Amino acid sequence: MDFDVNQAAKTVVSELRELAQLTSNEDGAQRVAWTPIWDRAVEWFKGKTKAEGADISMDAAHNVWAKITGEREEAIVIGSHLDSVPNGGWLDGALGVVAGMGILRRYGKHGVKPKYTIYVVNWADEEGARFGYSCTGSSAVSGAMDVQTIENLRDNDGVRFADALKNYCLQTADFPKAHEEFLAKPVKAYLELHIEQAPLLEKQRKAAACVYGITGCRRQYITFKGQPAHSGSPITMRQDAFLAAAQASLGFRGLGLKYDAYCTVGKVEVWPNVVTIVPGSCRISLDQRSIDPAVLNTLVEQARAVAQKAAAEHGVQVSFESVWKNPPTIFPDKLVALCREAVAEETGEQTSMVSGPLHDAAEISKLVPAVMMFAMSSQGLSHCKEENTPDRELETAIRAFFRLADKAMQA
Amino acid sequence: MDFDVNQAAKTVVSELRELAQLTSNEDGAQRVAWTPIWDRAVEWFKGKTKAEGADISMDAAHNVWAKITGEREEAIVIGSHLDSVPNGGWLDGALGVVAGMGILRRYGKHGVKPKYTIYVVNWADEEGARFGYSCTGSSAVSGAMDVQTIENLRDNDGVRFADALKNYCLQTADFPKAHEEFLAKPVKAYLELHIEQAPLLEKQRKAAACVYGITGCRRQYITFKGQPAHSGSPITMRQDAFLAAAQASLGFRGLGLKYDAYCTVGKVEVWPNVVTIVPGSCRISLDQRSIDPAVLNTLVEQARAVAQKAAAEHGVQVSFESVWKNPPTIFPDKLVALCREAVAEETGEQTSMVSGPLHDAAEISKLVPAVMMFAMSSQGLSHCKEENTPDRELETAIRAFFRLADKAMQA
Repeated sequence: MDFDVNQAAKTVVSELRELAQLTSNEDGAQRVAWTPIWDRAVEWFKGKTKAEGADISMDAAHNVWAKITGEREEAIVIGSHLDSVPNGGWLDGALGVVAGMGILRRYGKHGVKPKYTIYVVNWADEEGARFGYSCTGSSAVSGAMDVQTIENLRDNDGVRFADALKNYCLQTADFPKAHEEFLAKPVKAYLELHIEQAPLLEKQRKAAACVYGITGCRRQYITFKGQPAHSGSPITMRQDAFLAAAQASLGFRGLGLKYDAYCTVGKVEVWPNVVTIVPGSCRISLDQRSIDPAVLNTLVEQARAVAQKAAAEHGVQVSFESVWKNPPTIFPDKLVALCREAVAEETGEQTSMVSGPLHDAAEISKLVPAVMMFAMSSQGLSHCKEENTPDRELETAIRAFFRLADKAMQA
Repeated sequence: MDFDVNQAAKTVVSELRELAQLTSNEDGAQRVAWTPIWDRAVEWFKGKTKAEGADISMDAAHNVWAKITGEREEAIVIGSHLDSVPNGGWLDGALGVVAGMGILRRYGKHGVKPKYTIYVVNWADEEGARFGYSCTGSSAVSGAMDVQTIENLRDNDGVRFADALKNYCLQTADFPKAHEEFLAKPVKAYLELHIEQAPLLEKQRKAAACVYGITGCRRQYITFKGQPAHSGSPITMRQDAFLAAAQASLGFRGLGLKYDAYCTVGKVEVWPNVVTIVPGSCRISLDQRSIDPAVLNTLVEQARAVAQKAAAEHGVQVSFESVWKNPPTIFPDKLVALCREAVAEETGEQTSMVSGPLHDAAEISKLVPAVMMFAMSSQGLSHCKEENTPDRELETAIRAFFRLADKAMQA
């Protein structure tokens, strides 16, 4: 490498701190997409990359593209997202964008002209924290977006997504144009650095890993309907919807363990939710993930059976409402090999793993070769202000990512 | 009996329908205490009893007393409550008050002077539906009320109980005066007819039962604290607060079955309650009941152990907050014997049972001899618009209650 890679990694970390300072309060990062603090983060990104000599453009889905033209028109795209959940962490999403800024700096107006054109992209609204639609900008680009659904989504204050976009002079109907805009770019590879958001790497005392795939996901709501009754009514005569849901939820955990997959009941709503009334109904969410499409189907089927058995044992009814699904992503071997090498050269070990969380790379991978790299997460914490990666491990991961970009640039 | 008991029972049923008409909408009874529809029910009661020649008075806790003076000053008190939960049923509480009106009518201005003075009382706010404090009027009378606590309770709109009382020209500080007012009355016995609110009598094909006691109750909130994590984080590394709560809740049911008692998890709150986040904390309510004080203590102790075991198995913390307790009530043998006789004479069987639900009689029993009678509930439903007792069984229970009043009057 012909630049001071150690210093460049340290600069990325200090820029991440600068961004955190600008966009956090005592409860954590507040860069929720389609809010003024996110706008501030986006402007910060535009200002920083423009100062390095990049050309800035916005596509029809509000993704921001910072471009350094290379010797060839063919392009390497490096990206992630600056938006956060409310009370989020400083690294989720921001790490990948700011690391991209570090690579761009190397080739910017003070650097050398790269072999390939470089884009650093900030995907709009990966978290879906305000309107509930994940990977908004990247799914507009991939073509997977359901425009009808998204324009009618409402935030907790009842504001429609389509109305919130007016502040940005945007229309959801135009979002699919971002797909055409992307296809017009001759993209050779997409690279994304992200924090792990799980404790595996920390347990293994590793700073970084190649990510060779992203689990597919199936989400549903499961509603148990029993009969509300007084808390003084005999237990054997009850139809307790919550206990059926409780039993099913423990069963879902068992399925996750059996198939080395992910099963999560994150949302639980009991009705009428009164101390003295046996719950008459209970709705839970079930999020199931696996890297193997066959396993994913099995998980969903067996969850149905588990819920039906629990319902029958508690004398209640059960119904299922599928709300979202995404197939597993397997990144192409060639980029995965480059990523493994980069990790091995920096850390001494060819660590590689699957991502449980979804990322923009899953969308972009539908169009062009993509790969991801993970930096370890302290205690696996994310989506909270405690989210962290110690500086040493963070810099190691950033340097490994620089190596990956280098390899992609030379390939 | 020297009056047409069949006709009198039918009149009670038709008056119950008249009250329902006046105070219900398509979602059920709306006689929530300290609201205008309850006021309407209270005025209806005052008008009806006054028309029968009763003297009406209100005590310091807004309990309404309709008095027919007898040959002796010693009094029989018959009562229950006209208030309902929101979207409640037509019989819960109202049955006992309106049946009392039926007894009063026998001895009113068109009837015979009774041996003992008769009071029919409408206890204020038995349900605690608006401010969350049960047996408000009867606990003011019993002296058990915690005035400091009650005046600061707020409804769902943030209105303080003390402020809501201004519409009634009442002050919580005066509530304990109702205790003195009651003690000034030479009460010989308190009688209360209520619906069962459970399906036991229906399963046994019985219309009425003597209630010889009311279960004691212990209520607590149990909070499980784990660690929020992404739904893509490995299951074995999670600290899932909801799954700990789910496992504990199933364990509580087991305790209820083991000790022939009542355990209910009615309220469940998960945080952050997001589809893609493993619950970081979960608070549940636990309501435990038994007629045996020793069993009640055992239930609470073992529930603690069950919760701690579930917490340990899921790697989460657990804490307990006791919120309310009430000791078991056992009614005196003499009144219970009269009540058993009354039921047996009317139905042919000496049915007797314990009440799982709490009633005003538990408070009043602290001061004077009391007993209750139950009418069967269709499907055990209560606190909902489907609450019902078929006319035939309802009239049977009312006639049995008339017999009980007769017996108390002759004793």
